[in-house]
Amino acid sequence: MNTMEKQALIVGAGLVGSLWAVLLAKRGYQVDVYELRQDPRSAGFIGGRSINLAMSTRGWRALEKAGIDHKIREVAIPMYGRMMHSVEGELTFQPYGQEGQAIYSVSRGGLNIELINIADSYDNLRFHFGQKCLGADLASNTIHFENLETGQRSSVESPRIFGTDGAFSAVRRSLMKLPRFNYSQSYLEYGYKELHIPPKADGSHVIDKNALHIWPRGNFMMIALPNVDGSFTGTLFLPFEGQAEAFEHLETDEAINAFFKKHFPDSLPILPELLQDFRANPTSGLATIRCSPWRYEDKLLLIGDAAHAIVPFYGQGMNAGFEDCSILDELMEKHQDNWTEIIEVFNRERIQDANAVADLALRNFVEMRDLVADPLFLLRKEIGAYLQEKYPETFLPLYSQVTFSHIPYSKALNEGAAQDELFDRILAIQDIENNWKDNPEVDTVFRQWLKEREG
Amino acid sequence: MNTMEKQALIVGAGLVGSLWAVLLAKRGYQVDVYELRQDPRSAGFIGGRSINLAMSTRGWRALEKAGIDHKIREVAIPMYGRMMHSVEGELTFQPYGQEGQAIYSVSRGGLNIELINIADSYDNLRFHFGQKCLGADLASNTIHFENLETGQRSSVESPRIFGTDGAFSAVRRSLMKLPRFNYSQSYLEYGYKELHIPPKADGSHVIDKNALHIWPRGNFMMIALPNVDGSFTGTLFLPFEGQAEAFEHLETDEAINAFFKKHFPDSLPILPELLQDFRANPTSGLATIRCSPWRYEDKLLLIGDAAHAIVPFYGQGMNAGFEDCSILDELMEKHQDNWTEIIEVFNRERIQDANAVADLALRNFVEMRDLVADPLFLLRKEIGAYLQEKYPETFLPLYSQVTFSHIPYSKALNEGAAQDELFDRILAIQDIENNWKDNPEVDTVFRQWLKEREG
Repeated sequence: MNTMEKQALIVGAGLVGSLWAVLLAKRGYQVDVYELRQDPRSAGFIGGRSINLAMSTRGWRALEKAGIDHKIREVAIPMYGRMMHSVEGELTFQPYGQEGQAIYSVSRGGLNIELINIADSYDNLRFHFGQKCLGADLASNTIHFENLETGQRSSVESPRIFGTDGAFSAVRRSLMKLPRFNYSQSYLEYGYKELHIPPKADGSHVIDKNALHIWPRGNFMMIALPNVDGSFTGTLFLPFEGQAEAFEHLETDEAINAFFKKHFPDSLPILPELLQDFRANPTSGLATIRCSPWRYEDKLLLIGDAAHAIVPFYGQGMNAGFEDCSILDELMEKHQDNWTEIIEVFNRERIQDANAVADLALRNFVEMRDLVADPLFLLRKEIGAYLQEKYPETFLPLYSQVTFSHIPYSKALNEGAAQDELFDRILAIQDIENNWKDNPEVDTVFRQWLKEREG
Repeated sequence: MNTMEKQALIVGAGLVGSLWAVLLAKRGYQVDVYELRQDPRSAGFIGGRSINLAMSTRGWRALEKAGIDHKIREVAIPMYGRMMHSVEGELTFQPYGQEGQAIYSVSRGGLNIELINIADSYDNLRFHFGQKCLGADLASNTIHFENLETGQRSSVESPRIFGTDGAFSAVRRSLMKLPRFNYSQSYLEYGYKELHIPPKADGSHVIDKNALHIWPRGNFMMIALPNVDGSFTGTLFLPFEGQAEAFEHLETDEAINAFFKKHFPDSLPILPELLQDFRANPTSGLATIRCSPWRYEDKLLLIGDAAHAIVPFYGQGMNAGFEDCSILDELMEKHQDNWTEIIEVFNRERIQDANAVADLALRNFVEMRDLVADPLFLLRKEIGAYLQEKYPETFLPLYSQVTFSHIPYSKALNEGAAQDELFDRILAIQDIENNWKDNPEVDTVFRQWLKEREG
């Protein structure tokens, strides 16, 4: 088999699969994309239990490569920071980055349809919808499918197979039995439930649309992200059971009302469909999935959630999957379509970054549900922004490294640990809460920290 | 369904499955045992790639419950300690426990056949060999099988199903898709290969049969355990690749000979079939498998390697599986066959112990391949034995807790961490290498440590 043969089979036409199809088609590959669901353009997009997407720098770069960033920017809503809601209804705003920097709320369904549309405009790319992947025959580069309408089975052979079929990947299942395949799926003790915040009568948003709203309550929280139709998608994250506040205790209308009245009183007026939503929407789990290797020889590669599914708390799941595509696109350029090289390098270098963003996402849950309500935490954020402004060449806060840069996640994770130590030292300065601005001691501590790191 | 109905289906007639069948049959259960392989009593035992078993206290207790401990003791070979072989061929002996304490080398095949024999003597127990488990239908308590001889499929329903089908459990696969099922399989970067050390012409052992032999070489090692026929089963543990010494470099007879000559020269005379063995025997991987929960409601339970497969370096894999059976047997007694209670308690309390022994086994690899060659490590062991003798009520070395006691593994793991701290303090005493015996300072440090722990 020619390792440079320009033909590819993609299993899964979700966000990552359809983006990856575009990038391959642009480079002249003959691409076949098989997808379990029917064509969302005719069948309608079945969203299910998806939390809204927050597009950030890594995601945008991939969309630029696909040439559809402009189209998505038109319907994306910038969120410039977090808006914390206290129990008393007080609002506190904390910017995500510098002036003008934002993450963007986008609809999963709309984005997926745009990606499928642009992909479908290539003559060398074909979609096959309603095709269930039954498994792979690794030795012969073959995937077995079942047409869900006709029941007909088929086997598709390809020199290059990409598994982009998400967290519960059927392609990955075929790798599970290989000797030395490392795999873990790990669930949080938390579930989440979607709640709908409708628009005002005039179609406008009922709360500030340019922020990601958080109701942090220690070991649980609610969040809300804006939609273009004036609504918000709210999500409650709560332990399943075994805690004073848990889904297991919210079985009756009375219990649900009392829970929201006690913990989220300012949300009750904007959740008119609370009780119906609570019953109709499922309580879903939150998994982190890691595996290695991501490939079988130079023939099959997992990308996106199929390789690394993470919890949603850093808003990086889709961004990480899209970055996979960008990196692979750059490797295609560099290694001139030599897939033995491309897959080898990607598998060797990218897994540590996927593990790092998985860890970052898990840690950010604690930050969102608990720390953002802590004045000392907010002080750290403010000092971080101050240092970034004063020393733009040498200091970039962890959140910005993850969200507004292309720094590898594993490097950002390490930098974050060093920054924690810096903040510990700065916060040890006498009366720092009241005198951090233009305090020469802060600069001294910072320069000393920098010197140690460079030394 | 009656939670006390005395009927059970066991999938897997390996060591744990057949022992568990005996314990259930003894309590009057109607037991059906399905096994993939043919009856080993007629077909011969297919050992494959198994490292010898080292039976210790936890395993013996379970065999006592089954009533076959006497029969196994007759053919078990006591190993009273480790015999380390240096590159120069020097031997160092380090006892495992106190005078007379030993772990016992037993043959997996022989033990399994004995267990099947005793199980088969119960009228209320039936074996079904050559039956491949195709999966479980959890909702209806059903397991689907295929008769490997006739190809006939059958579905067996039972109020209580036990998955004892080992590290690659087919029963467990049916749990994988349940929401919130946590699972991980993690491989070491090491492989192992079995090598045969034949007996002398007169049938006796060529090296001391009452020890577990180790050739510790830093990041790799060879071990050997005695068999009743005068032979030893040797096992080489070595990185697969990426290291100076690795399986990938042992492709030619010259390379294999040179490797053994350099690192294990004293073993060459006792490995006359080295080159044939090296080619004929596979290089196998070493996995740790963890999952939770181990059950589906009160209907299905995983036991043994199906629930918790570990690396072999603490000699606890089979012992831990047998201890599962002992604990369940005691829970049956305590909860009077109320399976809702039994499975709830077992699942809640046993998983932490399985995770602890998995960690202990991983750590012991470093101990065996590296630390046992370190005089300071041996000194710790000697001081530990001394403290145990002097303070038998208050000090039991970690190894003895794991191997010669029924202390829960998780408790032993914690005790081990505290003991490490104690030894750090004792080894800080001036000139300790030469004056630890009857040194009052050692006793002072010990009593202070004990006081802190009790305080």
